Amino acid sequence: MDAYESLMTKQKEIETIGQISGLLGWDQEVMMPPKAAPLRAEQLAWLSKTRHKLMIDPEIGKLLVSAENDDDGKDGVRTGNLRLIRDAYDKATKQPSEFVERVARHKSKSIVSWTEAREKNDFSIFRDDLATMIDLARELADLLGYETLRYDALLDLYESGLTVARLDPLFAGLRESTVPLIQAVGNCEPPNMSWVTSNNWPEEAQAQLSHAISTAIGFDFGAGRRDKSTHPFCGGANPDDVRWTTRYDETEPFGSLYGSLHETGHGLYEQGRPRELDFQPTGHANGLGVHESQSRLWENQVGRSLAFCEWSLPMWKEHFPENMEGVTAEMLWRAVNQVEPSLIRVESDEATYNLHIMIRYEIEKLLISGELEIDQLPDAWDDMYERYLGIRSPDRKQGVLQDIHWSMGAFGYFPTYTLGNLYSAQLLQAARDDLESDGHILEDDWKNGTFSPLLEWMRNNVHRRGSILTPADLVEEATGVAPIPNPFVEYLQRKIGTIYGLA
Amino acid sequence: MDAYESLMTKQKEIETIGQISGLLGWDQEVMMPPKAAPLRAEQLAWLSKTRHKLMIDPEIGKLLVSAENDDDGKDGVRTGNLRLIRDAYDKATKQPSEFVERVARHKSKSIVSWTEAREKNDFSIFRDDLATMIDLARELADLLGYETLRYDALLDLYESGLTVARLDPLFAGLRESTVPLIQAVGNCEPPNMSWVTSNNWPEEAQAQLSHAISTAIGFDFGAGRRDKSTHPFCGGANPDDVRWTTRYDETEPFGSLYGSLHETGHGLYEQGRPRELDFQPTGHANGLGVHESQSRLWENQVGRSLAFCEWSLPMWKEHFPENMEGVTAEMLWRAVNQVEPSLIRVESDEATYNLHIMIRYEIEKLLISGELEIDQLPDAWDDMYERYLGIRSPDRKQGVLQDIHWSMGAFGYFPTYTLGNLYSAQLLQAARDDLESDGHILEDDWKNGTFSPLLEWMRNNVHRRGSILTPADLVEEATGVAPIPNPFVEYLQRKIGTIYGLA
Repeated sequence: MDAYESLMTKQKEIETIGQISGLLGWDQEVMMPPKAAPLRAEQLAWLSKTRHKLMIDPEIGKLLVSAENDDDGKDGVRTGNLRLIRDAYDKATKQPSEFVERVARHKSKSIVSWTEAREKNDFSIFRDDLATMIDLARELADLLGYETLRYDALLDLYESGLTVARLDPLFAGLRESTVPLIQAVGNCEPPNMSWVTSNNWPEEAQAQLSHAISTAIGFDFGAGRRDKSTHPFCGGANPDDVRWTTRYDETEPFGSLYGSLHETGHGLYEQGRPRELDFQPTGHANGLGVHESQSRLWENQVGRSLAFCEWSLPMWKEHFPENMEGVTAEMLWRAVNQVEPSLIRVESDEATYNLHIMIRYEIEKLLISGELEIDQLPDAWDDMYERYLGIRSPDRKQGVLQDIHWSMGAFGYFPTYTLGNLYSAQLLQAARDDLESDGHILEDDWKNGTFSPLLEWMRNNVHRRGSILTPADLVEEATGVAPIPNPFVEYLQRKIGTIYGLA
Repeated sequence: MDAYESLMTKQKEIETIGQISGLLGWDQEVMMPPKAAPLRAEQLAWLSKTRHKLMIDPEIGKLLVSAENDDDGKDGVRTGNLRLIRDAYDKATKQPSEFVERVARHKSKSIVSWTEAREKNDFSIFRDDLATMIDLARELADLLGYETLRYDALLDLYESGLTVARLDPLFAGLRESTVPLIQAVGNCEPPNMSWVTSNNWPEEAQAQLSHAISTAIGFDFGAGRRDKSTHPFCGGANPDDVRWTTRYDETEPFGSLYGSLHETGHGLYEQGRPRELDFQPTGHANGLGVHESQSRLWENQVGRSLAFCEWSLPMWKEHFPENMEGVTAEMLWRAVNQVEPSLIRVESDEATYNLHIMIRYEIEKLLISGELEIDQLPDAWDDMYERYLGIRSPDRKQGVLQDIHWSMGAFGYFPTYTLGNLYSAQLLQAARDDLESDGHILEDDWKNGTFSPLLEWMRNNVHRRGSILTPADLVEEATGVAPIPNPFVEYLQRKIGTIYGLA
């Protein structure tokens, strides 16, 4: 066996442990009896420790050097595998186990203080732990290394190759167009939501509708499952075993359906991974931003289109005959596209969502660089909400304390959500151009419930490309241009403009 | 760390892997999407290989010798742990990996030929593979070693310390009384089953009844689950995560309910394990015979008693109001205790079941010793059914080809089922004596739906004793006498005699 083959043999073991952990994680959220939590934690810890031990095995370091020297770059998969194994090996070995343990301990502690601070609406309870967490994030960046900014090292953890230099222009273009759009919407008549709020929406019918629509889009339930959980997610073990969840609220039906479409999008990506690369790093989905592009594509670009509403209306009427009496496709379309600035990110609409993300991004940059002091943070948060969204939080729990992520040390993570939105529009535009040049109109497909041409395009240009390229290179290969905000901006302006009569 | 402590640290890792495998096995039967089977097999194979590597680590051999030399026998748990680790180490290291692989390969092959032979009702298709499997079983016995009979080495695999010398007298006493009892029943009026067969029994109501009864018996659903699967079983990861399953047949309600009681019995045992011995071999349930005693206790001794039928009748009427109209507790009792010799073991009643087991036991002894030739086997099987049960199979599929176990090489396994029946009656007799000496009548409890005194007795005398003692010693400690057939024989004669008027 040469060095590369030996590496791939070790990789198979690492991947297998990852698959097992994925299944245990799913079970923990969906099936596990409550008393099983402590011993489940021991099982997951053992898997994690065993996987980490294999990943930092010095033998991998030696094999890597040898395989890298042998690599002539002619085989994209081989080069991609080496790049990804090198990246994982460096990230794991650059962090001393003392540091990893220190972070883990502090994470447990600061999740507790964040929870208490949020409950009591008192930032001071969380203040010191957050300050320490910011210090740890800086220490992590220094251990990992960076060229320009510390924050770049953190961004790279969630999207390979992402930097402030790449993000700033993307976000600026988006912000410049979205802020005035939302201000304009504020002066318009809101859509009619009374048919939604005046009815009860039984859970069983919501489940049937979501299942039927997920199946129609192309999710293979022979290689996956749909279940119920408190926090919706898509997980599982591998492309043959993709498990996503949703939750139900009987006072409104959109959360479960659009949540299902979102997780279906993640699930389609997982099921479309290149199977000849099973157990290889290049066989994986390409990072959080591209993953989010696939979920947002089906949830928003497709699912919140007028054509989709026209197709799905009869299914709505089948499952909710009384509630849907007199509701037209256009009424449904307007209702699922309501724009309304709000304080809470996870409840926000398609247009305002990205501004929530940009606020966190701007604040993270300042916190990591030290330009924003911890004691200035709560008011800085509120000021930014006023500037971006025109509203101000009356308290800390709807303000700076609303997200759990910083208590877990997840700095650099939020931007991938907005990247996903930008990528989704750019990819859809490219798919549309390709398919239209064959005389094919996407909206006509959707009206008829035909989703396979679009899915097949994503399969060929995104899913089956795994992680052979970096995320930005993948987007460029698929669309012909590096990531840009324009397609998303235009898509949003067009849709929101039409709905709110802003033309 | 001394040698014993080092052993226990290694043991914790081995146990953790076992817990994870338990969960993956459960998921495979209950939740897994069909296409996930091949990659699930890879995950389970990795866990099994990793666990085996840890178990046969030569370091364990060295630590064992050292810890055994240090052991003064004063601490029963320590002595028990060393006995069990020694046993597992010897069994694992005595089998060369070449042999283990050969058996695994032949197992896969012979399961296929058994399946085909059974489908086609043609023993000759399975003949050669079975002959090889018998040779492999003999080879295994020789590798493991034995004092008197080869077959003893195989019995010991499923119940530690079990031998032909111990089993023969138990089985002889049982056979001598059961054969005439069943013959006598053959001349009696069968119970009225028309109210069962003339009705449909909806699955949802069966599920609710089984859930309510399992809860009443004492199963903790905060530390376990009930699900549906093709083949009912009890599994899961650990005492905080015990998962059992049942199946439903809408033409009759007893399979799901008594199957549920059976699995609840296994589940109660798992939930009652000594928690201070988590991750230690002595903390485990004590082998297959004692495990089966707990399932058969709740299924039969308790569940098929008149008192239990009196208590559960109102629940039956609540869930099946129309079907149960006019049905009395005595009618229910007679229906769930119907005795009828039949060809198929897994469908047989409480009285005839053990004769099925004894036939397999007698045949296994002869096959392993070489006294019965493979070509004589099919007719020998039918002859024995005629002698024991008075019926003869018209074909091979209901005869020698009915059970899968021999195709998997599981020789020595069947007797634990009958041991479970014998142990259950002996344990119940001891519990009854103890509780009655406090003026406590078990049947009065059951009539009122009070099961905790009996469960508490089992917790204290069986569950919490884990595997500190060997199974036979555990039964003797709990009951005051070594395993005997009399309590079971008397229980069966009394109940069947009353129902069929044989007094």
